[in-house]
Amino acid sequence: MTYNAEHHALVLDGTPETQRFTLAEEVALSISYNGINYAVMLVTPKDIEDFIIGFSLSNDIIEHPRQLYGIELTYHKEHINAEVDIANQAFWKLKENKRQLAGASGCGLCGVEALDNALPQLQPVDPLPLPEASWFEGLRDLISQAQALAQQSGAVHGALYIDAERNVLACREDIGRHNAFDKLIGAIAANKLYQKDCLVVLTSRCSLELVQKAIRAKLPLLVTLSAPTALSVKWANRYGVSLIHVPKYDSPRAYSPQFLHPTRTLKV
Amino acid sequence: MTYNAEHHALVLDGTPETQRFTLAEEVALSISYNGINYAVMLVTPKDIEDFIIGFSLSNDIIEHPRQLYGIELTYHKEHINAEVDIANQAFWKLKENKRQLAGASGCGLCGVEALDNALPQLQPVDPLPLPEASWFEGLRDLISQAQALAQQSGAVHGALYIDAERNVLACREDIGRHNAFDKLIGAIAANKLYQKDCLVVLTSRCSLELVQKAIRAKLPLLVTLSAPTALSVKWANRYGVSLIHVPKYDSPRAYSPQFLHPTRTLKV
Repeated sequence: MTYNAEHHALVLDGTPETQRFTLAEEVALSISYNGINYAVMLVTPKDIEDFIIGFSLSNDIIEHPRQLYGIELTYHKEHINAEVDIANQAFWKLKENKRQLAGASGCGLCGVEALDNALPQLQPVDPLPLPEASWFEGLRDLISQAQALAQQSGAVHGALYIDAERNVLACREDIGRHNAFDKLIGAIAANKLYQKDCLVVLTSRCSLELVQKAIRAKLPLLVTLSAPTALSVKWANRYGVSLIHVPKYDSPRAYSPQFLHPTRTLKV
Repeated sequence: MTYNAEHHALVLDGTPETQRFTLAEEVALSISYNGINYAVMLVTPKDIEDFIIGFSLSNDIIEHPRQLYGIELTYHKEHINAEVDIANQAFWKLKENKRQLAGASGCGLCGVEALDNALPQLQPVDPLPLPEASWFEGLRDLISQAQALAQQSGAVHGALYIDAERNVLACREDIGRHNAFDKLIGAIAANKLYQKDCLVVLTSRCSLELVQKAIRAKLPLLVTLSAPTALSVKWANRYGVSLIHVPKYDSPRAYSPQFLHPTRTLKV
Protein backbone atom coordinates (compact mmCIF):
# COMPACT_ATOMS: atom_id res chain seq x y z
CA MET A 1 0.00 0.00 0.00
CA THR A 2 1.46 3.37 -1.05
CA TYR A 3 0.64 6.65 0.62
CA ASN A 4 0.69 8.72 -2.54
CA ALA A 5 -0.11 8.11 -6.19
CA GLU A 6 0.77 9.94 -9.37
CA HIS A 7 -2.00 10.98 -11.72
CA HIS A 8 -2.08 12.75 -15.06
CA ALA A 9 -3.84 16.08 -15.24
CA LEU A 10 -4.35 18.59 -18.00
CA VAL A 11 -3.00 21.96 -16.85
CA LEU A 12 -5.38 24.66 -18.04
CA ASP A 13 -2.69 27.11 -19.13
CA GLY A 14 -2.86 26.52 -22.87
CA THR A 15 -0.36 23.64 -23.00
CA PRO A 16 -1.86 20.61 -24.73
CA GLU A 17 0.12 17.98 -22.81
CA THR A 18 -0.80 16.47 -19.50
CA GLN A 19 1.50 16.55 -16.48
CA ARG A 20 1.89 14.14 -13.59
CA PHE A 21 0.99 15.23 -10.06
CA THR A 22 1.38 13.43 -6.77
CA LEU A 23 -1.92 12.95 -4.96
CA ALA A 24 -2.65 11.67 -1.47
CA GLU A 25 -4.06 8.14 -1.36
CA GLU A 26 -7.38 7.40 0.29
CA VAL A 27 -8.83 4.00 1.07
CA ALA A 28 -11.94 2.50 2.65
CA LEU A 29 -11.01 0.86 5.95
CA SER A 30 -13.50 -1.68 7.26
CA ILE A 31 -13.16 -2.21 11.02
CA SER A 32 -14.56 -5.19 12.90
CA TYR A 33 -14.18 -5.95 16.59
CA ASN A 34 -14.00 -9.61 17.61
CA GLY A 35 -15.57 -10.57 14.28
CA ILE A 36 -18.45 -8.06 14.28
CA ASN A 37 -18.46 -5.27 11.67
CA TYR A 38 -18.41 -1.88 13.28
CA ALA A 39 -17.65 0.87 10.76
CA VAL A 40 -16.15 1.68 7.37
CA MET A 41 -14.01 4.81 7.39
CA LEU A 42 -12.25 6.54 4.50
CA VAL A 43 -8.65 7.16 5.55
CA THR A 44 -5.17 7.91 4.26
CA PRO A 45 -3.49 4.46 4.35
CA LYS A 46 -0.60 5.42 6.62
CA ASP A 47 -0.31 4.62 10.35
CA ILE A 48 -3.49 2.55 10.23
CA GLU A 49 -2.72 0.77 13.51
CA ASP A 50 -2.42 4.15 15.24
CA PHE A 51 -5.73 5.14 13.68
CA ILE A 52 -7.49 2.03 14.94
CA ILE A 53 -6.16 2.47 18.48
CA GLY A 54 -7.13 6.17 18.51
CA PHE A 55 -10.51 5.52 16.86
CA SER A 56 -11.25 2.81 19.43
CA LEU A 57 -10.35 5.15 22.31
CA SER A 58 -12.17 8.18 20.86
CA ASN A 59 -15.34 6.17 20.28
CA ASP A 60 -15.16 4.77 23.82
CA ILE A 61 -14.92 1.18 22.55
CA ILE A 62 -11.85 0.58 24.68
CA GLU A 63 -10.90 2.52 27.79
CA HIS A 64 -7.21 1.75 27.60
CA PRO A 65 -4.88 0.45 24.84
CA ARG A 66 -4.31 -2.64 27.03
CA GLN A 67 -7.86 -3.70 26.09
CA LEU A 68 -6.79 -3.94 22.44
CA TYR A 69 -5.01 -7.27 21.97
CA GLY A 70 -4.22 -7.21 18.26
CA ILE A 71 -4.96 -5.79 14.81
CA GLU A 72 -4.88 -7.87 11.63
CA LEU A 73 -4.93 -5.92 8.38
CA THR A 74 -5.84 -7.49 5.03
CA TYR A 75 -5.18 -5.43 1.93
CA HIS A 76 -7.64 -5.57 -0.98
CA LYS A 77 -7.80 -3.63 -4.23
CA GLU A 78 -9.90 -0.71 -3.02
CA HIS A 79 -10.21 -1.33 0.69
CA ILE A 80 -8.48 -2.64 3.80
CA ASN A 81 -10.06 -4.98 6.31
CA ALA A 82 -9.05 -4.56 9.94
CA GLU A 83 -9.90 -7.39 12.31
CA VAL A 84 -9.47 -5.99 15.79
CA ASP A 85 -9.21 -8.24 18.82
CA ILE A 86 -10.42 -6.54 22.01
CA ALA A 87 -10.87 -7.61 25.62
CA ASN A 88 -14.12 -9.37 26.51
CA GLN A 89 -15.13 -6.55 28.84
CA ALA A 90 -14.87 -3.98 26.03
CA PHE A 91 -16.68 -6.29 23.62
CA TRP A 92 -19.59 -6.85 26.03
CA LYS A 93 -19.97 -3.06 26.40
CA LEU A 94 -19.87 -2.66 22.63
CA LYS A 95 -22.60 -5.28 22.12
CA GLU A 96 -24.69 -3.76 24.91
CA ASN A 97 -24.42 -0.29 23.30
CA LYS A 98 -25.43 -1.74 19.94
CA ARG A 99 -28.41 -3.49 21.50
CA GLN A 100 -29.59 -0.34 23.30
CA LEU A 101 -29.30 1.72 20.14
CA ALA A 102 -31.05 -0.90 18.04
CA GLY A 103 -33.88 -1.14 20.55
CA ALA A 104 -34.30 2.55 21.19
CA SER A 105 -34.04 3.94 17.73
CA GLY A 106 -33.23 1.38 15.06
CA CYS A 107 -29.82 1.51 13.49
CA GLY A 108 -28.35 4.29 11.37
CA LEU A 109 -26.56 4.05 8.08
CA CYS A 110 -24.32 6.99 8.80
CA GLY A 111 -23.63 9.66 11.36
CA VAL A 112 -24.00 9.20 15.08
CA GLU A 113 -27.53 8.13 15.73
CA ALA A 114 -28.35 8.96 19.30
CA LEU A 115 -28.03 12.47 20.64
CA ASP A 116 -26.35 11.07 23.75
CA ASN A 117 -23.54 9.84 21.54
CA ALA A 118 -23.15 13.20 19.83
CA LEU A 119 -23.33 15.21 23.07
CA PRO A 120 -22.09 12.77 25.73
CA GLN A 121 -21.27 13.38 29.39
CA LEU A 122 -17.48 13.29 29.73
CA GLN A 123 -14.93 13.40 32.54
CA PRO A 124 -13.34 16.87 32.86
CA VAL A 125 -9.65 17.32 32.17
CA ASP A 126 -7.25 19.05 34.57
CA PRO A 127 -6.60 22.40 32.88
CA LEU A 128 -3.00 23.46 32.23
CA PRO A 129 -1.52 26.97 32.05
CA LEU A 130 -0.85 28.23 28.53
CA PRO A 131 2.70 28.34 27.19
CA GLU A 132 4.38 31.70 26.59
CA ALA A 133 3.52 33.56 23.38
CA SER A 134 7.02 32.80 22.07
CA TRP A 135 6.12 29.09 21.94
CA PHE A 136 3.87 29.81 18.94
CA GLU A 137 6.46 31.71 16.86
CA GLY A 138 7.23 29.94 13.60
CA LEU A 139 4.76 27.18 14.44
CA ARG A 140 3.57 26.87 10.84
CA ASP A 141 7.13 26.17 9.66
CA LEU A 142 7.56 23.55 12.39
CA ILE A 143 4.36 21.86 11.20
CA SER A 144 5.36 21.96 7.52
CA GLN A 145 8.71 20.34 8.28
CA ALA A 146 7.03 17.54 10.22
CA GLN A 147 4.31 16.79 7.64
CA ALA A 148 6.05 14.32 5.32
CA LEU A 149 2.97 13.42 3.28
CA ALA A 150 1.77 17.01 2.87
CA GLN A 151 5.18 17.96 1.47
CA GLN A 152 4.59 15.56 -1.42
CA SER A 153 0.91 15.80 -2.12
CA GLY A 154 -0.62 18.67 -0.13
CA ALA A 155 -4.24 18.29 0.92
CA VAL A 156 -3.64 16.24 4.05
CA HIS A 157 -4.25 17.44 7.58
CA GLY A 158 -1.63 17.09 10.28
CA ALA A 159 -1.98 16.37 13.99
CA LEU A 160 1.14 16.93 16.09
CA TYR A 161 2.14 16.32 19.70
CA ILE A 162 4.70 18.93 20.73
CA ASP A 163 6.34 19.44 24.11
CA ALA A 164 7.06 22.66 25.98
CA GLU A 165 10.53 22.89 24.35
CA ARG A 166 8.92 22.56 20.91
CA ASN A 167 10.16 19.03 20.25
CA VAL A 168 7.72 17.27 17.91
CA LEU A 169 7.07 13.95 19.68
CA ALA A 170 4.67 12.68 16.99
CA CYS A 171 3.08 13.83 13.75
CA ARG A 172 0.27 11.95 12.04
CA GLU A 173 -1.42 12.83 8.75
CA ASP A 174 -4.72 12.09 7.05
CA ILE A 175 -7.06 13.48 4.43
CA GLY A 176 -9.61 13.87 7.23
CA ARG A 177 -8.99 16.08 10.25
CA HIS A 178 -10.83 13.73 12.61
CA ASN A 179 -8.77 10.80 11.37
CA ALA A 180 -5.48 12.69 11.75
CA PHE A 181 -6.31 13.42 15.40
CA ASP A 182 -7.38 9.80 16.03
CA LYS A 183 -4.05 8.63 14.57
CA LEU A 184 -2.20 10.98 16.91
CA ILE A 185 -4.22 9.81 19.94
CA GLY A 186 -3.39 6.23 18.95
CA ALA A 187 0.30 7.05 18.52
CA ILE A 188 0.47 8.75 21.93
CA ALA A 189 -1.17 5.74 23.59
CA ALA A 190 0.74 3.05 21.69
CA ASN A 191 4.16 4.66 22.14
CA LYS A 192 3.53 5.92 25.70
CA LEU A 193 4.30 9.51 24.65
CA TYR A 194 1.89 11.14 27.09
CA GLN A 195 3.43 14.06 28.98
CA LYS A 196 1.49 16.49 31.06
CA ASP A 197 2.73 19.74 29.50
CA CYS A 198 2.51 18.78 25.81
CA LEU A 199 0.32 20.54 23.27
CA VAL A 200 -1.73 19.03 20.48
CA VAL A 201 -1.55 21.02 17.26
CA LEU A 202 -4.07 20.43 14.46
CA THR A 203 -3.79 22.07 11.05
CA SER A 204 -7.57 22.23 10.74
CA ARG A 205 -10.54 24.12 12.05
CA CYS A 206 -11.69 23.11 15.50
CA SER A 207 -15.19 21.69 15.70
CA LEU A 208 -16.93 19.97 18.59
CA GLU A 209 -15.85 16.42 17.77
CA LEU A 210 -12.18 17.39 17.94
CA VAL A 211 -12.67 18.93 21.38
CA GLN A 212 -14.49 15.78 22.51
CA LYS A 213 -11.54 13.66 21.34
CA ALA A 214 -9.16 15.91 23.32
CA ILE A 215 -11.32 15.61 26.47
CA ARG A 216 -11.53 11.81 26.25
CA ALA A 217 -7.77 11.53 25.66
CA LYS A 218 -7.04 13.95 28.54
CA LEU A 219 -5.19 16.43 26.33
CA PRO A 220 -5.80 19.86 27.89
CA LEU A 221 -4.02 22.12 25.35
CA LEU A 222 -5.44 22.11 21.82
CA VAL A 223 -3.97 24.40 19.15
CA THR A 224 -5.59 24.80 15.72
CA LEU A 225 -4.59 26.86 12.69
CA SER A 226 -8.14 27.91 11.93
CA ALA A 227 -10.79 29.29 14.28
CA PRO A 228 -12.83 27.09 16.63
CA THR A 229 -16.61 26.98 16.47
CA ALA A 230 -18.59 28.62 19.24
CA LEU A 231 -19.83 25.19 20.42
CA SER A 232 -16.22 23.95 20.65
CA VAL A 233 -15.34 26.88 22.90
CA LYS A 234 -18.33 26.17 25.17
CA TRP A 235 -17.39 22.52 25.56
CA ALA A 236 -13.70 23.26 25.99
CA ASN A 237 -14.50 25.68 28.80
CA ARG A 238 -16.92 23.25 30.43
CA TYR A 239 -14.41 20.36 30.44
CA GLY A 240 -11.11 22.14 31.10
CA VAL A 241 -9.53 22.21 27.65
CA SER A 242 -7.77 25.38 26.43
CA LEU A 243 -8.31 26.13 22.74
CA ILE A 244 -5.68 28.25 21.05
CA HIS A 245 -6.26 29.52 17.52
CA VAL A 246 -3.08 30.53 15.67
CA PRO A 247 -4.14 32.76 12.74
CA LYS A 248 -1.77 33.04 9.80
CA TYR A 249 -1.05 36.77 10.16
CA ASP A 250 -2.19 37.58 13.72
CA SER A 251 -1.19 36.77 17.29
CA PRO A 252 -2.51 33.53 18.81
CA ARG A 253 -5.89 33.70 20.55
CA ALA A 254 -6.59 31.60 23.63
CA TYR A 255 -10.25 30.74 24.12
CA SER A 256 -9.97 29.57 27.70
CA PRO A 257 -8.81 32.70 29.45
CA GLN A 258 -10.50 31.85 32.76
CA PHE A 259 -7.70 29.38 33.42
CA LEU A 260 -5.20 32.20 33.20
CA HIS A 261 -7.32 34.75 35.03
CA PRO A 262 -9.57 32.81 37.36
CA THR A 263 -10.83 35.93 39.13
CA ARG A 264 -12.01 37.68 35.99
CA THR A 265 -15.67 37.33 35.14
CA LEU A 266 -16.06 36.49 31.50
CA LYS A 267 -19.21 36.14 29.48
CA VAL A 268 -18.31 32.93 27.71
CA MET B 1 -30.81 30.50 16.20
CA THR B 2 -27.85 32.69 15.24
CA TYR B 3 -25.19 31.67 12.74
CA ASN B 4 -22.29 33.27 14.57
CA ALA B 5 -21.42 33.97 18.19
CA GLU B 6 -18.97 36.32 19.87
CA HIS B 7 -16.47 34.91 22.34
CA HIS B 8 -13.78 36.43 24.47
CA ALA B 9 -10.21 35.33 23.83
CA LEU B 10 -6.91 36.34 25.33
CA VAL B 11 -4.62 37.53 22.54
CA LEU B 12 -1.13 36.21 23.23
CA ASP B 13 0.70 39.40 22.29
CA GLY B 14 1.41 40.69 25.77
CA THR B 15 -1.84 42.63 26.24
CA PRO B 16 -3.61 41.61 29.45
CA GLU B 17 -7.16 42.25 28.23
CA THR B 18 -9.35 39.86 26.32
CA GLN B 19 -10.88 40.74 22.97
CA ARG B 20 -14.11 39.60 21.36
CA PHE B 21 -14.03 37.49 18.21
CA THR B 22 -16.84 36.25 16.00
CA LEU B 23 -16.95 32.45 15.73
CA ALA B 24 -19.06 30.21 13.55
CA GLU B 25 -21.89 28.43 15.34
CA GLU B 26 -22.18 24.64 15.31
CA VAL B 27 -25.11 22.58 16.49
CA ALA B 28 -26.13 18.93 16.79
CA LEU B 29 -28.94 18.20 14.33
CA SER B 30 -30.97 15.08 15.06
CA ILE B 31 -32.77 13.78 11.98
CA SER B 32 -35.69 11.35 12.03
CA TYR B 33 -37.68 10.09 9.07
CA ASN B 34 -41.39 9.36 9.64
CA GLY B 35 -40.72 9.16 13.38
CA ILE B 36 -37.67 6.90 13.29
CA ASN B 37 -34.30 8.32 14.38
CA TYR B 38 -31.75 8.15 11.61
CA ALA B 39 -28.66 10.23 12.40
CA VAL B 40 -27.23 13.06 14.46
CA MET B 41 -25.01 15.41 12.49
CA LEU B 42 -22.99 18.42 13.69
CA VAL B 43 -23.78 21.31 11.35
CA THR B 44 -23.62 25.07 11.00
CA PRO B 45 -27.23 26.10 11.78
CA LYS B 46 -27.92 27.92 8.51
CA ASP B 47 -29.95 26.56 5.58
CA ILE B 48 -30.91 23.48 7.56
CA GLU B 49 -33.79 22.60 5.24
CA ASP B 50 -31.39 22.60 2.27
CA PHE B 51 -29.05 20.36 4.28
CA ILE B 52 -31.80 17.87 5.05
CA ILE B 53 -32.92 17.68 1.42
CA GLY B 54 -29.32 17.27 0.20
CA PHE B 55 -28.43 14.79 2.96
CA SER B 56 -31.52 12.72 2.13
CA LEU B 57 -30.59 12.68 -1.56
CA SER B 58 -26.86 12.01 -0.96
CA ASN B 59 -27.62 9.12 1.37
CA ASP B 60 -30.09 7.66 -1.14
CA ILE B 61 -32.98 7.93 1.32
CA ILE B 62 -35.07 9.76 -1.25
CA GLU B 63 -34.60 9.60 -5.00
CA HIS B 64 -36.24 12.92 -5.72
CA PRO B 65 -37.15 15.96 -3.60
CA ARG B 66 -40.82 15.21 -4.38
CA GLN B 67 -40.50 12.24 -2.00
CA LEU B 68 -39.80 14.66 0.86
CA TYR B 69 -43.18 16.03 2.05
CA GLY B 70 -42.12 18.25 4.92
CA ILE B 71 -39.52 19.17 7.53
CA GLU B 72 -40.39 20.27 11.06
CA LEU B 73 -37.55 21.81 13.05
CA THR B 74 -37.63 22.15 16.84
CA TYR B 75 -34.94 24.27 18.44
CA HIS B 76 -33.42 23.22 21.79
CA LYS B 77 -30.57 24.68 23.80
CA GLU B 78 -27.74 22.66 22.26
CA HIS B 79 -29.43 20.77 19.47
CA ILE B 80 -32.10 20.91 16.79
CA ASN B 81 -34.60 18.14 16.10
CA ALA B 82 -35.68 17.63 12.51
CA GLU B 83 -38.78 15.52 11.92
CA VAL B 84 -38.77 14.68 8.23
CA ASP B 85 -41.87 13.39 6.49
CA ILE B 86 -41.02 11.22 3.46
CA ALA B 87 -43.05 9.20 0.97
CA ASN B 88 -44.04 5.67 1.98
CA GLN B 89 -41.97 4.17 -0.83
CA ALA B 90 -38.80 5.88 0.44
CA PHE B 91 -39.60 4.93 4.03
CA TRP B 92 -40.10 1.25 3.13
CA LYS B 93 -36.71 1.25 1.40
CA LEU B 94 -35.11 2.92 4.43
CA LYS B 95 -36.58 0.34 6.79
CA GLU B 96 -35.52 -2.50 4.48
CA ASN B 97 -31.93 -1.14 4.35
CA LYS B 98 -31.86 -0.87 8.13
CA ARG B 99 -33.13 -4.43 8.50
CA GLN B 100 -30.56 -5.83 6.06
CA LEU B 101 -27.72 -4.02 7.78
CA ALA B 102 -28.89 -5.08 11.21
CA GLY B 103 -29.14 -8.68 10.07
CA ALA B 104 -25.91 -8.81 8.12
CA SER B 105 -23.57 -6.99 10.40
CA GLY B 106 -25.18 -5.55 13.49
CA CYS B 107 -25.56 -1.79 13.66
CA GLY B 108 -22.80 0.79 13.86
CA LEU B 109 -22.47 3.69 16.22
CA CYS B 110 -20.64 5.85 13.74
CA GLY B 111 -19.32 5.83 10.23
CA VAL B 112 -20.83 3.87 7.41
CA GLU B 113 -20.95 0.27 8.47
CA ALA B 114 -21.10 -1.81 5.34
CA LEU B 115 -18.48 -1.63 2.63
CA ASP B 116 -21.27 -1.59 0.02
CA ASN B 117 -22.41 1.69 1.49
CA ALA B 118 -18.92 3.18 1.44
CA LEU B 119 -18.13 1.94 -2.08
CA PRO B 120 -21.54 1.67 -3.75
CA GLN B 121 -22.41 0.99 -7.37
CA LEU B 122 -23.67 4.26 -8.87
CA GLN B 123 -25.20 5.43 -12.13
CA PRO B 124 -22.60 7.17 -14.35
CA VAL B 125 -23.00 10.85 -15.15
CA ASP B 126 -22.90 12.28 -18.69
CA PRO B 127 -19.49 13.99 -18.84
CA LEU B 128 -19.32 17.63 -19.90
CA PRO B 129 -16.50 19.51 -21.66
CA LEU B 130 -14.39 21.71 -19.40
CA PRO B 131 -14.86 25.49 -19.45
CA GLU B 132 -12.09 27.70 -20.86
CA ALA B 133 -9.12 28.45 -18.59
CA SER B 134 -10.35 32.06 -18.32
CA TRP B 135 -13.40 30.82 -16.39
CA PHE B 136 -11.15 30.10 -13.40
CA GLU B 137 -9.47 33.52 -13.23
CA GLY B 138 -10.23 35.34 -9.99
CA LEU B 139 -12.30 32.40 -8.78
CA ARG B 140 -11.08 32.75 -5.19
CA ASP B 141 -12.33 36.35 -5.06
CA LEU B 142 -15.69 35.31 -6.47
CA ILE B 143 -15.96 32.67 -3.72
CA SER B 144 -14.93 35.09 -0.95
CA GLN B 145 -17.57 37.59 -2.03
CA ALA B 146 -20.26 34.92 -1.98
CA GLN B 147 -19.35 33.43 1.41
CA ALA B 148 -21.32 35.62 3.82
CA LEU B 149 -20.58 33.54 6.94
CA ALA B 150 -16.88 33.10 6.21
CA GLN B 151 -16.52 36.88 5.88
CA GLN B 152 -17.58 37.24 9.53
CA SER B 153 -16.10 34.22 11.23
CA GLY B 154 -13.74 32.41 8.88
CA ALA B 155 -13.39 28.67 9.33
CA VAL B 156 -16.44 27.64 7.28
CA HIS B 157 -16.34 25.81 3.98
CA GLY B 158 -18.28 27.01 0.97
CA ALA B 159 -20.05 25.10 -1.79
CA LEU B 160 -21.10 27.13 -4.82
CA TYR B 161 -23.11 26.47 -7.97
CA ILE B 162 -21.80 28.72 -10.75
CA ASP B 163 -22.89 28.89 -14.38
CA ALA B 164 -20.78 29.20 -17.53
CA GLU B 165 -21.00 33.02 -17.36
CA ARG B 166 -19.74 32.91 -13.76
CA ASN B 167 -23.06 33.85 -12.16
CA VAL B 168 -23.21 32.38 -8.65
CA LEU B 169 -26.61 30.64 -8.59
CA ALA B 170 -26.22 29.39 -5.01
CA CYS B 171 -23.68 29.43 -2.19
CA ARG B 172 -24.03 27.35 0.96
CA GLU B 173 -21.68 27.28 3.95
CA ASP B 174 -20.89 24.90 6.78
CA ILE B 175 -18.11 24.04 9.21
CA GLY B 176 -17.97 20.64 7.48
CA ARG B 177 -17.13 20.26 3.80
CA HIS B 178 -19.52 17.32 3.36
CA ASN B 179 -22.34 19.30 4.94
CA ALA B 180 -21.66 22.37 2.77
CA PHE B 181 -21.99 20.22 -0.37
CA ASP B 182 -25.16 18.52 0.92
CA LYS B 183 -26.66 21.97 1.57
CA LEU B 184 -25.82 23.00 -2.01
CA ILE B 185 -27.31 19.79 -3.44
CA GLY B 186 -30.44 20.47 -1.40
CA ALA B 187 -30.58 24.10 -2.58
CA ILE B 188 -30.21 23.08 -6.24
CA ALA B 189 -33.00 20.52 -5.88
CA ALA B 190 -35.36 22.67 -3.78
CA ASN B 191 -35.00 25.79 -5.94
CA LYS B 192 -34.86 23.94 -9.28
CA LEU B 193 -31.50 25.53 -10.12
CA TYR B 194 -30.13 22.57 -12.07
CA GLN B 195 -28.55 23.56 -15.39
CA LYS B 196 -26.47 21.29 -17.52
CA ASP B 197 -23.38 23.46 -17.91
CA CYS B 198 -22.99 24.64 -14.31
CA LEU B 199 -19.96 23.92 -12.15
CA VAL B 200 -19.85 23.01 -8.49
CA VAL B 201 -17.04 24.76 -6.61
CA LEU B 202 -15.96 23.55 -3.16
CA THR B 203 -13.44 25.40 -1.02
CA SER B 204 -12.14 22.13 0.41
CA ARG B 205 -10.03 19.15 -0.49
CA CYS B 206 -11.75 16.58 -2.65
CA SER B 207 -12.14 13.15 -1.08
CA LEU B 208 -14.15 10.19 -2.29
CA GLU B 209 -17.38 11.03 -0.48
CA LEU B 210 -17.59 14.40 -2.22
CA VAL B 211 -17.19 12.75 -5.63
CA GLN B 212 -19.90 10.23 -4.71
CA LYS B 213 -22.23 13.11 -3.81
CA ALA B 214 -21.52 14.74 -7.20
CA ILE B 215 -22.22 11.46 -9.05
CA ARG B 216 -25.52 10.85 -7.23
CA ALA B 217 -26.65 14.46 -7.84
CA LYS B 218 -25.59 14.25 -11.53
CA LEU B 219 -23.15 17.15 -11.27
CA PRO B 220 -20.37 16.42 -13.81
CA LEU B 221 -18.00 19.36 -13.14
CA LEU B 222 -16.47 19.53 -9.67
CA VAL B 223 -13.93 22.24 -8.81
CA THR B 224 -12.01 22.23 -5.52
CA LEU B 225 -9.43 24.64 -4.11
CA SER B 226 -7.25 21.88 -2.72
CA ALA B 227 -6.03 18.70 -4.42
CA PRO B 228 -8.21 15.61 -4.87
CA THR B 229 -7.21 12.25 -3.45
CA ALA B 230 -6.08 9.53 -5.83
CA LEU B 231 -9.22 7.50 -5.04
CA SER B 232 -11.41 10.49 -5.90
CA VAL B 233 -9.75 10.75 -9.30
CA LYS B 234 -10.31 7.04 -9.98
CA TRP B 235 -14.00 7.24 -9.12
CA ALA B 236 -14.48 10.51 -10.99
CA ASN B 237 -12.99 8.93 -14.12
CA ARG B 238 -15.05 5.78 -13.71
CA TYR B 239 -18.35 7.66 -13.36
CA GLY B 240 -17.89 10.60 -15.75
CA VAL B 241 -17.14 13.46 -13.35
CA SER B 242 -14.37 15.95 -14.18
CA LEU B 243 -12.34 17.07 -11.16
CA ILE B 244 -10.60 20.41 -11.45
CA HIS B 245 -8.13 21.49 -8.78
CA VAL B 246 -7.51 25.25 -8.64
CA PRO B 247 -4.23 25.78 -6.70
CA LYS B 248 -3.70 29.17 -5.09
CA TYR B 249 -0.66 30.16 -7.15
CA ASP B 250 -0.76 27.78 -10.15
CA SER B 251 -2.93 27.11 -13.18
CA PRO B 252 -5.99 24.88 -12.72
CA ARG B 253 -5.46 21.14 -13.19
CA ALA B 254 -8.17 18.97 -14.72
CA TYR B 255 -8.09 15.34 -13.60
CA SER B 256 -10.40 14.00 -16.28
CA PRO B 257 -8.52 14.81 -19.46
CA GLN B 258 -9.85 11.80 -21.37
CA PHE B 259 -13.12 13.66 -21.82
CA LEU B 260 -11.24 16.41 -23.59
CA HIS B 261 -8.94 14.09 -25.52
CA PRO B 262 -10.83 10.84 -25.90
CA THR B 263 -8.28 9.39 -28.32
CA ARG B 264 -5.30 9.86 -26.02
CA THR B 265 -4.27 6.88 -23.96
CA LEU B 266 -3.71 7.91 -20.40
CA LYS B 267 -2.41 5.89 -17.53
CA VAL B 268 -4.95 6.98 -14.94
